[in-house]
Amino acid sequence: MSEINSADLMALCKRRGFIWPSFELYGGVAGMYDYGPLGCSLRNNIVEVWRSIYKGREGFVEIDSDTVNPREVFKASGHVDEFADLITYCKECQAPFRADHMVKDFYDNPDILSPKQLEEAFVKHNIRCPECGGELGPVDEFNLMFRTNIGPGSARVGYLRPETAQGIFVNFPNLYRYNREKLPLGVIQTGRSYRNEIAPRQGMIRLREFNQMEVELFVDPEDKDWSRFEEIQDETIRLVPNTTGELVEMTVKEAVDKGIIANRVLAYFVNTTKQLLLRLGVDPQRLRFRQHLDDEMAHYAADCWDAEVLLSYGWTEITGIADRGCWDLSRHAQFSGTELTHFKKFDEPREVEVTKVRAKHKALGPLYKGKAKDIAAAIESLVPGDVKDGKISLEIDGEVKEFGEEFFEVVTVKEKVAGERVVPHVIEPSHGLDRIFYSVLEHAYEYDAEKDYTVLHLAPIVAPIKVGVFPLMEKDGLDDVARSIYEGIHTHRVEAYYDGSGTIGKRYARMDEVGTPWCITVDYDTLENGTVTIRDRDTTEQKRIPKDEAARIVDELLSGKPFAEL
Amino acid sequence: MSEINSADLMALCKRRGFIWPSFELYGGVAGMYDYGPLGCSLRNNIVEVWRSIYKGREGFVEIDSDTVNPREVFKASGHVDEFADLITYCKECQAPFRADHMVKDFYDNPDILSPKQLEEAFVKHNIRCPECGGELGPVDEFNLMFRTNIGPGSARVGYLRPETAQGIFVNFPNLYRYNREKLPLGVIQTGRSYRNEIAPRQGMIRLREFNQMEVELFVDPEDKDWSRFEEIQDETIRLVPNTTGELVEMTVKEAVDKGIIANRVLAYFVNTTKQLLLRLGVDPQRLRFRQHLDDEMAHYAADCWDAEVLLSYGWTEITGIADRGCWDLSRHAQFSGTELTHFKKFDEPREVEVTKVRAKHKALGPLYKGKAKDIAAAIESLVPGDVKDGKISLEIDGEVKEFGEEFFEVVTVKEKVAGERVVPHVIEPSHGLDRIFYSVLEHAYEYDAEKDYTVLHLAPIVAPIKVGVFPLMEKDGLDDVARSIYEGIHTHRVEAYYDGSGTIGKRYARMDEVGTPWCITVDYDTLENGTVTIRDRDTTEQKRIPKDEAARIVDELLSGKPFAEL
Repeated sequence: MSEINSADLMALCKRRGFIWPSFELYGGVAGMYDYGPLGCSLRNNIVEVWRSIYKGREGFVEIDSDTVNPREVFKASGHVDEFADLITYCKECQAPFRADHMVKDFYDNPDILSPKQLEEAFVKHNIRCPECGGELGPVDEFNLMFRTNIGPGSARVGYLRPETAQGIFVNFPNLYRYNREKLPLGVIQTGRSYRNEIAPRQGMIRLREFNQMEVELFVDPEDKDWSRFEEIQDETIRLVPNTTGELVEMTVKEAVDKGIIANRVLAYFVNTTKQLLLRLGVDPQRLRFRQHLDDEMAHYAADCWDAEVLLSYGWTEITGIADRGCWDLSRHAQFSGTELTHFKKFDEPREVEVTKVRAKHKALGPLYKGKAKDIAAAIESLVPGDVKDGKISLEIDGEVKEFGEEFFEVVTVKEKVAGERVVPHVIEPSHGLDRIFYSVLEHAYEYDAEKDYTVLHLAPIVAPIKVGVFPLMEKDGLDDVARSIYEGIHTHRVEAYYDGSGTIGKRYARMDEVGTPWCITVDYDTLENGTVTIRDRDTTEQKRIPKDEAARIVDELLSGKPFAEL
Repeated sequence: MSEINSADLMALCKRRGFIWPSFELYGGVAGMYDYGPLGCSLRNNIVEVWRSIYKGREGFVEIDSDTVNPREVFKASGHVDEFADLITYCKECQAPFRADHMVKDFYDNPDILSPKQLEEAFVKHNIRCPECGGELGPVDEFNLMFRTNIGPGSARVGYLRPETAQGIFVNFPNLYRYNREKLPLGVIQTGRSYRNEIAPRQGMIRLREFNQMEVELFVDPEDKDWSRFEEIQDETIRLVPNTTGELVEMTVKEAVDKGIIANRVLAYFVNTTKQLLLRLGVDPQRLRFRQHLDDEMAHYAADCWDAEVLLSYGWTEITGIADRGCWDLSRHAQFSGTELTHFKKFDEPREVEVTKVRAKHKALGPLYKGKAKDIAAAIESLVPGDVKDGKISLEIDGEVKEFGEEFFEVVTVKEKVAGERVVPHVIEPSHGLDRIFYSVLEHAYEYDAEKDYTVLHLAPIVAPIKVGVFPLMEKDGLDDVARSIYEGIHTHRVEAYYDGSGTIGKRYARMDEVGTPWCITVDYDTLENGTVTIRDRDTTEQKRIPKDEAARIVDELLSGKPFAEL
């Protein structure tokens, strides 16, 4: 197979209507692409395969939340404070640059440098503006969220979401109720996210407006198993653990038993990601799961793996699968002041020791009379930690009053409790839909330079057009037969394409180039014996089938029947 | 049927996971809702029915374009200058209000008042802030687009799109090429649009972030027919023409023949909208098509009809079907400086008279020598309108030179031309997806106050859950049988719901309330004879069917087989 040239593939995508640079009429905007007819179908087909696994097989629920969010959401998630790249502007021409990209020839990991270190590096290595040669200015943080205002005035700041995940987290109380207060609770969401890149490059890999398919699975923190684990434990996966940095292939069970993947539920969804990507047509030899390095992993993450595919850009992350612990719900609980927990019932009520603050009613009564009862209740709502230097403070009728130990005691008692409140942990397979889309295309792409011939070997399940339908000539009624075959096959889910112009060879070439798995041709024999030819894209083999069974046969092929068995 | 209370329905939607007010954890944001599990499925099902008609039956193509657009797009579309409501702020508490809403008790059409007239009306009728009683301030325009900046700095202003349509218009050159430079060219898009309402009300009817399903059909301006018109010309539609304002029912053909609907292609898509809405479950008696009044219609529109449904809010527009003429493409051509036309081939080449500027080579030659040829070409690239006072100006080597009539002549000649360039006209069925979603729910909603019992009579094709599967008791293996029936039916497209808790009556009630058309119950007879009961939501009738045929029977019911024929 020839070396893949991403520029050639992008040119094909543009020419044939997969993706188009956005706003070309107005000079374009970097990092923005629109999905054309074939791209939109291919992308929707990818989403459907993802849904068939998560919503179908696993029974997860899907939601769709807003893309414009008020500031509070991203203050809690950390994006307001942390979601930034370092920027520098040329002092002469004011062009903006990602500061770490400016020094990448001199450092292995330029993204760990501080603003000060970057500024020093500019001087030390005499790095200047790539546009005009001017001096580079100071290095600042640039928050990557698109900012806007909700409603009139600038009172309520909003941001375009940088990930779909937060829409799931902030709906946890609603989702938990929907799931009848049970765990595990699996939720999926697909939709737009936004990242106001300083200087986007690399085609579809780094977009300002992009699409995600995210999965948030809320689990009992003490139960990181998965009921279907045994079904897949003997499947193999290709892993790059952070201990060795070397690629190893092993079974899912081995990966867990050896402590390479932190737990069974995470391992199950690493494997599910593999199943998804392979079903979409990713080449298994160009897919691996790389464990985050210790300094790369978020401090709260128990474990994190990136699904990486080999593209012409190098190994590229297209999905991340993380055990995020209790981080997300804890943060939103803290910032919203709302408890976000699961009530975990014990098998039977347990006797536990509880340390609590108890009011001395006998001392309060005579002194506070009618108010004594309320004060006692207020005291007993406190926790032992509220006791400072043997005293507690309460606000009574707008005044803060102190109470000494004559009015309360800290006691340890035994109580029967039915269960306990725990903060669910989150397992998150997060998919970059545009990157998956592009990877599927690159792994399907075959260009024969000698023949100047391109074939996209797309898996039929994702191919935008399933069947090309051609009359040999657009006359003698061949076109009518072809049209009626087209009408019999074409639906919004099984798309067919009628093509009556050019030589048959050219028509096959057009369909091969956009990955159409099969072509049906109506010829003069059809008028005689009612059969048409059907051609297989990958083998170019042709067979004759009855024209009236074309739709049924296409359905069978789509269900996985081999062409050879027709 | 009982009077519908939209508050009751919205409460049901929230309780059962159809829609949730967004960001409740952080106090909520007016005019924003998230789709919960059932709502997301219902909404996706609506989109699929729309796709089945436009992408399936009509063979239109679907694209997906960016939601953040640079300013140029909406300058051309008119939204930067025109997409505004009038706003006033309370001088005391600074609360913002839509100025026309403040005076709606005093005027029939407050939205036609000017800012000055509104200010005068505040004084005349002593209208004050509804929040604090303060005086209302001056009336200004407030643009309803969410504004942001693309990339670092504030150099490039962007807006969140107020409609998905513009993404289709600006991609016209790509789409036209994809369609092999032919008309008609039908394009659909679904996705988010945004409208930064001053003070949103009315639940899902007026949202700040909403969903559209838009269709843009580009047609030859001289051919407003539609090939399938005859197939539907005898179907009836309920129209409110702007000449009479009275509801009349007539056939599509009559509406066109009598000049009530402007042309056949527009009438076809008015009828298609009816087909779509009825298939989704809209009540035909609560659906009408109202023609825009002359002063309501955009100046460029040839004709425009609103599909209106009767809701608890009154008659509400949920889809608009317009013949927008050449407006959209002309504006983008003008603002981008790019020709956006269709080359319309004549049946055979025509001889036409052309007036053009012709260079006098004999005069130019001796004077300009080697440059004469280039100058002649430059002269002949001009049009007669470029001749001013008998002279023309040309830039030659950076200098502007004038040429008198000794160097050129304006001549009228006959030429053979193969065709002409025309600006396509646009037929636009534009659907408010959230409004359709809500209408489907309201028209399906039935509350029996006496029994305190709710049924959503959703059409099976849109119902989020198709089948409830219950074991009579969760023991004796009944649960295993029920689980295996659930597994056999449930996919991401045909969703089933397993429910093992509570009385069977309660479980039926839960399913009735969310519009599940059928329920299957496994009981002790199942263990004996292998049959289960299947219950019809609308009649509550029950039948016994073999458990192993449950999945097939559900498929048949979904394909339209009547329950009575099981």
